[in-house]
This record gives sequence, structure tokens and C-alpha cells, in this order.
Amino acid sequence: MKNVFVHPTAQVETVDVGEGTRIWAFAHVLPGAHVGKDCNIGDHCFIEGGARVGDNATVKNGNMLWEGVTLEEGVFVGPHVFFTNDLYPRSQRLPEVRNRYASKESWLVPTLVRRGASLGAGAVILAGVTVGELTMVAAGAVVTKDVPPHALVVGAPARARGWVCECGRPLRFRHGDSTCQSCGAHFREEGKEIRKIEASRQG
Amino acid sequence: MKNVFVHPTAQVETVDVGEGTRIWAFAHVLPGAHVGKDCNIGDHCFIEGGARVGDNATVKNGNMLWEGVTLEEGVFVGPHVFFTNDLYPRSQRLPEVRNRYASKESWLVPTLVRRGASLGAGAVILAGVTVGELTMVAAGAVVTKDVPPHALVVGAPARARGWVCECGRPLRFRHGDSTCQSCGAHFREEGKEIRKIEASRQG
Amino acid sequence: MKNVFVHPTAQVETVDVGEGTRIWAFAHVLPGAHVGKDCNIGDHCFIEGGARVGDNATVKNGNMLWEGVTLEEGVFVGPHVFFTNDLYPRSQRLPEVRNRYASKESWLVPTLVRRGASLGAGAVILAGVTVGELTMVAAGAVVTKDVPPHALVVGAPARARGWVCECGRPLRFRHGDSTCQSCGAHFREEGKEIRKIEASRQG
Repeated sequence: MKNVFVHPTAQVETVDVGEGTRIWAFAHVLPGAHVGKDCNIGDHCFIEGGARVGDNATVKNGNMLWEGVTLEEGVFVGPHVFFTNDLYPRSQRLPEVRNRYASKESWLVPTLVRRGASLGAGAVILAGVTVGELTMVAAGAVVTKDVPPHALVVGAPARARGWVCECGRPLRFRHGDSTCQSCGAHFREEGKEIRKIEASRQG
Repeated sequence: MKNVFVHPTAQVETVDVGEGTRIWAFAHVLPGAHVGKDCNIGDHCFIEGGARVGDNATVKNGNMLWEGVTLEEGVFVGPHVFFTNDLYPRSQRLPEVRNRYASKESWLVPTLVRRGASLGAGAVILAGVTVGELTMVAAGAVVTKDVPPHALVVGAPARARGWVCECGRPLRFRHGDSTCQSCGAHFREEGKEIRKIEASRQG
Repeated sequence: MKNVFVHPTAQVETVDVGEGTRIWAFAHVLPGAHVGKDCNIGDHCFIEGGARVGDNATVKNGNMLWEGVTLEEGVFVGPHVFFTNDLYPRSQRLPEVRNRYASKESWLVPTLVRRGASLGAGAVILAGVTVGELTMVAAGAVVTKDVPPHALVVGAPARARGWVCECGRPLRFRHGDSTCQSCGAHFREEGKEIRKIEASRQG
């Protein structure tokens, strides 16, 4: 792996880490995990074989990315976010359920976090959901169903509270239009979602 | 300890670990902790002296099992579950409260998780509760009081939402009876709890 | 550093740790972090440059104290409390937001926890709040605004549920006065806060 920084205390067992990525203290990346280019993987993280982290992602400390979890480009995972990959978890060693865990097909449920989304500290992401592009999941929220792009979701279970800009700030809409007070980007409501209006298309 | 796998980065200071158990990277098991047979203790776990883990338990990554916490056989502890052992915690080093922490009797409150129960990712288990046999605590739930066997509890504070089979799936009851759609086990309501009906006793 | 215990697996890169402090396994303290005297820093903690921990603090396992977080004397931080220092987090590596992260002034928001306060297991403390002296934040609470001294706050978002004594026990008020049933300290309501009445001023 070219130009990858691995802290001396980290354990990196995969060979699939992109250029420019840094992996910090006491992190553990297993064989078969994919980590893209220019990522930052914080202390005490655990990335399992089969998990995929896109380029330019920031994975803060203490995260566990299980098999079945995919993060697209530029995702922000706050400290100690909770991913899961089984909706009815039991100890595989319990005699009553050993059959269920004989093959992954019967329990493994994937999770997808789309480009540029942010997951706040301590958020819980239930297996099976898709978190939309550039979404903002508030700290401590419990996400139990899919979240549309640019949505701000809050609480347990997480509910839509509004929309956010690509820069992360809340957007206020008037007559279906919004201009971000912070970065000036333009958005329009379209059905139940919002869409960015590129500069060249305005007016 | 016979046939125990300890990752080279783990620190295991107890001698009381059962055969077939595996303890993973950066985990720390203190003197006086008990870990049963055929357990799996994930990365970055911490098991304190006086904590007890039964056989066949799965303790996912990042868990902290304090003195006073007892897990019976076959318990599933999801990632980063929060156990506590003090209902009125203060820094023991604060002058105002040093007397209170002079002996454990004045602050240490035990927690019991019964056979085969599952604790979802990021659940909070307050000191002093008993989580019943084969219970399912949802991810992110805050358990503030005892939970009966086979219950599904959800939310903060955790409330009963229904019943689950030993295989983990929700059960639907009609006229006090239920057959699991997934594994075929039979259950009957009895007062405020449910009981499994063994095959030999049916009809 | 005189009389500081550092576990052989811990990484301590600051030189600013007070006498009598103990730092446990797999903890990582960065250059520029301040840790006071007689503190206990649990396993798997992470203390970033710019974070400040006062004397006599108890920081339980798995905590991450980011730049901008200040704990005064005698604070108790339960297991895996979630601090944050950015209200609109994005991956700094995402092209759309690189400008925002060019300087700390545009994103870094400080947090202050005052003397003797307790933060329960898994509590979430949003960037920008001040947690008052000897406050008790319940396990799993999500603190989104300032908390007055001696308050007990619970839930998500955290709401005031009553008052606590310096010893941590709930206080019951009658006609604006309260005597702690546990330690005998006296308190009086004053406007929207409470104040301890010193023995010499009674009657």
C-alpha cells in the first residue's frame, strides 16, 4: 500500500487501503476490508472484512464497521456510531439458534450510507437502511428506516426535522426555494425531496 | 487456560477463562473476571474483576463489563452496550463524596442478564435491573427496570413492544397462543408473561 | 511527569499530566492535552490536544475528549460519553466543504463541564453547551442546551427532572427548602436555581 500512514499500535490486515489514508492508534482493519483514498480512520476503530469505506471519508474514533456496511465517498461518521448487521441478533453459540447462523444469508442485512452524508456522535443505524446523499443524522438519533438525500433527522426513532445544505447548515424554504445562508447554494423542493440548482441553470 | 485464543494485542490478566473462548484485539480482561466456555469477546472490550460471563456468550466489540455485571449462558451483547454499576455516580476523587466511595456496599449495584437474552447496539442498562431470559432489547433502548422473559423492549425509557421467540423473531398472539412463523416454536400467554410449550405437551 | 502511572499499552504524548494521575490500557493522550492531578483515565480513552481535564476527575473507559472540551475539577464522565465539537459536521475531505475546514474558527465549538458534574453512561453532549456544577446528566440523555448547577436532566433531548445533592442523590423540596436524606446537606431554591446553605448560616 503506497503512502498509507498506519499508527504503530494499529493492526491493519487488509491490503486494500487507498493512497493518502491514515489509520490511527489501536485501530484494527481486518482482511477483506476496503478503505478508499485519503480517508481518516480514528483511534480504536474496527473495520471488518466485507465492510467498504469510500474515498475521502472521515471515520471518527471508536467506530465499528461490520461486514455489510458500505460508506460511499466523503461520508462523515461521528464518534462511536452504532452500525448493526442483524435484525434479530442472538449469540450464535446459543444452541437454539445455531442453525440460523449456519449461513450468512439467513441473518446478514446490509447498510448503505451515500456520498457525503454525516452521522452524528452516537447515532444508531439499524441494519437494512439506506442513508441518503449529504444527509445529516443528528447525534444520538436512532435511524430505523431510509433517509432521503439532504434530510436532517433527529431523535429516537429518527424523524425528519428539515433539510440541510451540502455544507451541513439547515435550509429554510420559501415557496419551494431555498438559498443557503452560509454558502449560497440554491435548492428547490421536488415532490418529497429537494434538489440542488446549479448556478448555470438559474434565472 | 486450555484452548483459549488470546489475540497478541489483548491483555488477559484473569486465569478464569473457559475452554474454546476467543478474546480479540485490544481487549482487556482484569484479574478476578470470569469468562465461560466457547465465548467470543470482541475487540476493545473491557471486563473488570468481579464481572461474570456465562458459557456461549457473544460479547461484541467495545463492551465494558463492570464489577457487578453478570451475564448468564448464551447472552448476546451488541456493540458498545452501556452497563453501569452506580445509580448516583460522582468522581470518587471529589472531596465531597469520598466517604461514599470508602466501601463498595454504599454504591455498587449489580445487574443480571439472564440466559440467551440479546442487548442491541448502544442499549443502556441501568444498574440494578434484571433482563429476562431470551429477551430482546432493541438497539439504543434505555432499560430502567426489570424486563420479563421473551419480551421485546424499545425506546428511552424502554417500553414493552411485544414478545420474541427464542430464535429472536417477533411473535403474534391469537387467543393467547402463538406459533413462530420462522422456527415453529409454540408459546402461550400466562398472566403477564409467556411460556414455551414443548412439542411433547401439545394437543 | 512525577508519580504518574501509565499502563504499558497506553500512548501518552503530552507532558502535561498532574501528579498521582493514572492512565489505563490502550488509552491515547495527544500532545497538547492537559490532564490534572489525581485523575483516573480509563481504558480506551482518547484525549486530543487542546482538551483539558481538571484535577480529581474520573474519566471512565472509552471516552473521547476532543479539542474544545474542558472538564473542571472532580468531574465524572461515565463510560462512552459522546462529546462533539462541530455542530454541522462533514467529512473535511469532501470537496464541497474543504473551505469550511480551512481554519478552526469556522467550525470548532467548545464545551464546558463545571466542577463536580456527572455525565451518565452514553450521554450525548452537544458542542457549545455548559453543564453546571454538580449536575447529574442521566445515562443516555442527549444534552442540547446549558444545564444549571445541581440539576438532574434526563431523556432525549434532555429535560430537567429535578435537583440533586452534591452527593448525587435526588433532593425533594418543601416550601423552597430541602435537606438531603442521604448526607444531610441543606439547599434553598433561589429563582430558577438552587443554592447550598452552609451549616454556619443555618437557623
